[in-house]
Amino acid sequence: MPLQEHHSEKLIEVTRGPLTESVHAGHLAVVDTAGTLIASAGSPGYYTYARSAAKLLQAIPLVESGGAERLGLTEAETALCCASHGGEPRHTETARSLLAKAGCDESALCCGPQEPMFAPAADMLKAGGQPATALHNNCSGKHAGMLALAQIMGVSIHQYTDPGHPVQQKMLAAVADMCGVPQSGITLGIDGCGVPVFGMPISALALAYARLGSPAGLPEQRAEACRRIVDSIRHQPYYVAGTARFDTALVEATGGRIIGKFGAEGVYAASIPELGLGLALKIEDGAERAIYPAAAEALLQLGALRPEEAEKLAAFRRPPVYNRRGDTVGEIRPVFTLTRH
Amino acid sequence: MPLQEHHSEKLIEVTRGPLTESVHAGHLAVVDTAGTLIASAGSPGYYTYARSAAKLLQAIPLVESGGAERLGLTEAETALCCASHGGEPRHTETARSLLAKAGCDESALCCGPQEPMFAPAADMLKAGGQPATALHNNCSGKHAGMLALAQIMGVSIHQYTDPGHPVQQKMLAAVADMCGVPQSGITLGIDGCGVPVFGMPISALALAYARLGSPAGLPEQRAEACRRIVDSIRHQPYYVAGTARFDTALVEATGGRIIGKFGAEGVYAASIPELGLGLALKIEDGAERAIYPAAAEALLQLGALRPEEAEKLAAFRRPPVYNRRGDTVGEIRPVFTLTRH
Repeated sequence: MPLQEHHSEKLIEVTRGPLTESVHAGHLAVVDTAGTLIASAGSPGYYTYARSAAKLLQAIPLVESGGAERLGLTEAETALCCASHGGEPRHTETARSLLAKAGCDESALCCGPQEPMFAPAADMLKAGGQPATALHNNCSGKHAGMLALAQIMGVSIHQYTDPGHPVQQKMLAAVADMCGVPQSGITLGIDGCGVPVFGMPISALALAYARLGSPAGLPEQRAEACRRIVDSIRHQPYYVAGTARFDTALVEATGGRIIGKFGAEGVYAASIPELGLGLALKIEDGAERAIYPAAAEALLQLGALRPEEAEKLAAFRRPPVYNRRGDTVGEIRPVFTLTRH
Repeated sequence: MPLQEHHSEKLIEVTRGPLTESVHAGHLAVVDTAGTLIASAGSPGYYTYARSAAKLLQAIPLVESGGAERLGLTEAETALCCASHGGEPRHTETARSLLAKAGCDESALCCGPQEPMFAPAADMLKAGGQPATALHNNCSGKHAGMLALAQIMGVSIHQYTDPGHPVQQKMLAAVADMCGVPQSGITLGIDGCGVPVFGMPISALALAYARLGSPAGLPEQRAEACRRIVDSIRHQPYYVAGTARFDTALVEATGGRIIGKFGAEGVYAASIPELGLGLALKIEDGAERAIYPAAAEALLQLGALRPEEAEKLAAFRRPPVYNRRGDTVGEIRPVFTLTRH
């Protein structure tokens, strides 16, 4: 499906001294569990890949099938299935235990090696002369979850990343269903870790996140799976991201009243159960530095984030720009106002 | 000076499978030595910081004053004054020799430490347990050049990064003069390395680069300085950038018929002496990945880059997007056509 007509809106400015040096345009949609558009910026129907923001939806089949329970997954392990983790030691240990419960080891992972996203963890590896492995890949939890699902389904674990593999078919079905779009309306690409990624309107991703946090209207087994996934992140936020990461800090700052998930190339999705809302955004140019200011600002404008919580997240919402001597020379700041519908 | 009205043009697309996943908008100006606009994309008068693209202009006072000759600078050392180098061993050695000729050592550098931009050089340092120093800072050559100019001018080397220091005043004057704007029309910010950066219309930066490569109309001492600076980069392109860098590859691919310089936050400037033209561009969102495809494509459309040269630079003009397993999953590609004036 090609990119449709859209209207770009400037969401974020990066200043340096008296000038705005760079700008980030994007799109944002806030919807309720019926899919009604509540607020927006830019074009709420903007069509793009959900990238890692889909991981929470991809975890549904494993939990919904009773597989997570049968394998005895801990909440940390369930959260890791949804994670773009930092590759910190507790993340890789948890990936290992999850793989063991799936009857595998890291040799079964097809995500490829990746240096830990958390720079100090990458430096630690280098200092020890150790190469990064597939366990350090920020997606290792998702891949371990896919292997676990293959075992539960009784299908081969080989080629589990292939779009035609039963595991990927299950995930596509769950994603499409949660997003309220037919499977034919989802465009498939290949992620950095080799598995399919899901193209859709950001409003559809927002709907999935609204349902994820407020699943009362869903079939009971699906609703229970959503609750368990959301609870795993609420209770173990470290395992969905890690040290110094917004996804983890957002849960900690709000006591789990909001959960959210980063996606590569400028994607964010969040669930606000107490308002029955889901939010999704895309920074058009894919810049990660613009994601968190935009997400935090939107949550504040919605009244989902309380002022004292926004204060705790200030370093994400309006981060200073430093030079290499540590002086503040500018800032990254949100400059949009949500349109209410 | 605030950002004026402008028209953004989509310059670069980043694809993944069947979708365009991210886009980069920007502005581009091509002018002759009289400042006449020859070609453009977006708004050729877009006002932004020149960042490190100003380094070639900042090297002028040292060369023009006869200082480079008096201190016996080699072409590699002169090129390093203009560099955003990779922090590779030959770069740091050259920075050290340049400092020695200026009667200083690295303790005089105020740029702050920075990990080498060239990742294998950074890894090598880490593997050896050595911290990055100011010599590894990509700007260490520029700073060494500033110290050399202070010595030649007979002024204090202390606080040489202060906008009021005679060295910075000389540089502001040279930049404004080459760009054809009054000093009052230049907006000052602070760079990543602590010294002033120069805000101006990109058309003014393009004019400076046209003059740099075709300096016949300039006063003789200035013209000679421009020739020496351009020649230093033509003859020693490794020292203006380094391994696997576009600035170096561009000179090598064209046999020095074109020279160009990267700047942080999406800036590029190039000189095409045989056509008497200068080019400058700004990627609005500051993304480095969009700079080289845009610069190479514009040079190709201008006929400055020959098809076989463009072929040599294909990995910069239209780089594949890989996943972490090494499969090609998309590409970064130019999507603009220059408007001729």
